[in-house]
Amino acid sequence: MAKLTSRSENYSQWYNELVVKADLAENSEVRGCMVIKPYGFSIWEKMQSALDKMFKDTGHSNAYFPLFIPKSLFEAEEKNAEGFAKECAVVTHYRLKNDPNKEGKLMVDPEAKLEEELIVRPTSEAIIWKTYKNWIQSYRDLPILINQWANVVRWEMRTRLFLRTAEFLWQEGHTAHATKKEALDETEQMINVYATFARDFMAMPVIQGLKTKSEQFAGAEETYCIEALMQDGKALQAGTSHFLGQNFAQAFDVKYTTKEGKQEFVWATSWGVSTRLMGALIMAHSDDNGLVLPPKLAPIHVAIVPIYKGSEQLEEISAKVAPIKSELEKHGLTVKFDNRDTYKPGFKFAEYEMKGVPVRIAIGPKDLEKNTVEVARRDTLEKQPVAVDQVVNHIVNLLDEIQDNIFNRAQKFQETNTHEVNDYDSFKKAIEQGGFVSAHWDGSSETEELIKQETKATIRCIPLNNQKQEGVCVRSGKPSSQRVIFAKAY
Amino acid sequence: MAKLTSRSENYSQWYNELVVKADLAENSEVRGCMVIKPYGFSIWEKMQSALDKMFKDTGHSNAYFPLFIPKSLFEAEEKNAEGFAKECAVVTHYRLKNDPNKEGKLMVDPEAKLEEELIVRPTSEAIIWKTYKNWIQSYRDLPILINQWANVVRWEMRTRLFLRTAEFLWQEGHTAHATKKEALDETEQMINVYATFARDFMAMPVIQGLKTKSEQFAGAEETYCIEALMQDGKALQAGTSHFLGQNFAQAFDVKYTTKEGKQEFVWATSWGVSTRLMGALIMAHSDDNGLVLPPKLAPIHVAIVPIYKGSEQLEEISAKVAPIKSELEKHGLTVKFDNRDTYKPGFKFAEYEMKGVPVRIAIGPKDLEKNTVEVARRDTLEKQPVAVDQVVNHIVNLLDEIQDNIFNRAQKFQETNTHEVNDYDSFKKAIEQGGFVSAHWDGSSETEELIKQETKATIRCIPLNNQKQEGVCVRSGKPSSQRVIFAKAY
Repeated sequence: MAKLTSRSENYSQWYNELVVKADLAENSEVRGCMVIKPYGFSIWEKMQSALDKMFKDTGHSNAYFPLFIPKSLFEAEEKNAEGFAKECAVVTHYRLKNDPNKEGKLMVDPEAKLEEELIVRPTSEAIIWKTYKNWIQSYRDLPILINQWANVVRWEMRTRLFLRTAEFLWQEGHTAHATKKEALDETEQMINVYATFARDFMAMPVIQGLKTKSEQFAGAEETYCIEALMQDGKALQAGTSHFLGQNFAQAFDVKYTTKEGKQEFVWATSWGVSTRLMGALIMAHSDDNGLVLPPKLAPIHVAIVPIYKGSEQLEEISAKVAPIKSELEKHGLTVKFDNRDTYKPGFKFAEYEMKGVPVRIAIGPKDLEKNTVEVARRDTLEKQPVAVDQVVNHIVNLLDEIQDNIFNRAQKFQETNTHEVNDYDSFKKAIEQGGFVSAHWDGSSETEELIKQETKATIRCIPLNNQKQEGVCVRSGKPSSQRVIFAKAY
Repeated sequence: MAKLTSRSENYSQWYNELVVKADLAENSEVRGCMVIKPYGFSIWEKMQSALDKMFKDTGHSNAYFPLFIPKSLFEAEEKNAEGFAKECAVVTHYRLKNDPNKEGKLMVDPEAKLEEELIVRPTSEAIIWKTYKNWIQSYRDLPILINQWANVVRWEMRTRLFLRTAEFLWQEGHTAHATKKEALDETEQMINVYATFARDFMAMPVIQGLKTKSEQFAGAEETYCIEALMQDGKALQAGTSHFLGQNFAQAFDVKYTTKEGKQEFVWATSWGVSTRLMGALIMAHSDDNGLVLPPKLAPIHVAIVPIYKGSEQLEEISAKVAPIKSELEKHGLTVKFDNRDTYKPGFKFAEYEMKGVPVRIAIGPKDLEKNTVEVARRDTLEKQPVAVDQVVNHIVNLLDEIQDNIFNRAQKFQETNTHEVNDYDSFKKAIEQGGFVSAHWDGSSETEELIKQETKATIRCIPLNNQKQEGVCVRSGKPSSQRVIFAKAY
């Protein structure tokens, strides 16, 4: 297996190569759309399963709404429509026919033109709020707490596997509430769920905060986000939770009768994470040998590679391995005994390193003699011999240790690469150097835009529970009451 | 809650009403597309979870392929393309813009026309086999055993919730094999998986068989199916598994190098079930009071309804219910204690009957005195008092009994409504009466078509392991070697 380009040499190329070589995803024949390969998809399934449980534990149910949105619904909430209109896949016809001029070829049947065009959903607020209108009459019908797992399409011009694709998979929560407070609480609860998921499953520390007006979701009153720092010093928005106010309720005339018999517009939230998380996971932890996976999201926890000559040795090793494997499985771990005779051990080692399997066991004739195995951990690449009768406990503990170590490493990286600056020269240097930059900002969109033009840095967020601190904006010198987080971002 | 139209009065209307009143699904603003509501979706999730496990236990992995198929790929396998061309949603543009003539309205931007139109997948063989071409070089790369859970679109003109919708959810397995035998074995294995799932989870007996040439999947060599009988005597195709031969390998030039160094085309299968199974489930078991669910697919196993006056009685009942609920949950059951004070017990009873909750417990002041509860089973509507200290075991056993009873009832219905006939008059009468009709057929598409025109009956399948039996075709009088199954069908 050919080596990866190193991160220091070309980070972007390293990423692109890793995604393909670790069998995570690849570009398809369709512009901007990816194929998520079985190994990559099994990581996404682990993410889905953990998130889905967290959503249900907080009272949400799954449902499914149509892929298509009629244009007249799509345009109802104007800001939302404006935000997505430029990148929409549009269905205009519903039939193909034989091309009379080309034997065996098909053409769009001009007689099968739709009366109203259908937009392939870039997000589902419009179709969902049109539906909620029929579901909501009284306060008894609230709250509605629904999530859907779905594919969405945004016709991005520059795409990259997982990070930005024309079609991607995501979940979108859409909730309806009687009061502003309830909706705000929900918005905050869900950004907390995302931050917890990032920390506990992805081993990825994030900053939680509010987006500035210019970075908000189109149609939202407030957008909460989690921001993670990648190894190249760029930030990545990993999840968002939107307080939508009454914007969609007004656009679709969704009112409810209060206990007191009054008619009020309903309050809304929406929140989502996508297959983009796969990109974050890859870039947060992986190294020049390939993927590094936190055990909690690893499809295979332990790979066992026999080192043998001849079938007799393989049999001996297999007999030794069988109880280890079954004991590990009793602990809920996924174990792969790789006895393929078509590949050599060195090749297998490289493959499991590339795929980020957290623990690898190697066992050969010398190990049989000593009744040991060699245990290698992926995160540090350290190896050590472990007695067979201790190996199960050793590995169970080691997996926890790896999960913690990956998180701690990422957190240390984030701390080391977060810089407080107080003047524009230091700001520009810090941005050039990479990482989060904490700086005073005067609160105006104009200054934000100037800084973006001059440095390519954007305000990633105004951190939640931010310390109030008097200061002056690094760009305008105007007064500021708090620091915000800047970075170049994906 | 208003009563359903009865089945005998109008079966079709009964179905439509039930789907909406049991909160399963509803029509959306998009022609032919449905909204699957949370309760309906939770049943589908149970189906998915059981099927997904069966697929993984038989060695398959999930992956994800693009929603869109470029027209040139779509038309590559001609029979497949021809089969779906007439019902395709076609994306022709990738941007909207402000309509200069209508303030606040959007229009398709004529400058954003795609060079090549994209078909919204009606099925994914084309895009998947184009991808497999890059994955398969040698026999070492085979078999490929992949499934995907996805939405697909077929522009049906007449739609019905779950049974036939323009967009539906399904899984589609796509496998690639070195030999014809392996591919045939896979095709049979997967139809067996579907039959097992139908029997063990849906409590629905099915006939497994082969489709005739005229009823095959477009692009298949052989289509295996499972056919179920609905309560109105119509058949419903509940799942299909296709042996695709080398058709797609040839269309996309997918060859592999054998161990002996020869180049051979790859053999293919595909297989799928969809949200149509929800329609089958509903129509197989439900009654005039609403849905009847097999416990294995029920989102709520037990609903507990307190009958009380005042908060003191409710507290007493709640205290009595708490340990019952928690014990039932320890058995892996989902229990809902419905202490809403906004609805009366009678309303709740009707609601849980409508939603098909298998077991309902009612508990009031008299039960408290006697230390009993009233247990009602949904399948037979029988009620009986049960002592509190026996209720958990009683219900655990009762749920198994209900699962069995529902299956046995459906099987008896199928047996009673399967008729062997030997002449065309009897055939026509039997078809008119409803049910499966077992009759001799001469094997020709012409006769099959004549029978369809004359009676609206189609050949549902040639049963697997069919007894060979000499006879004469009921329509043509020509010789026949076996009986096949006819019915009117959904």
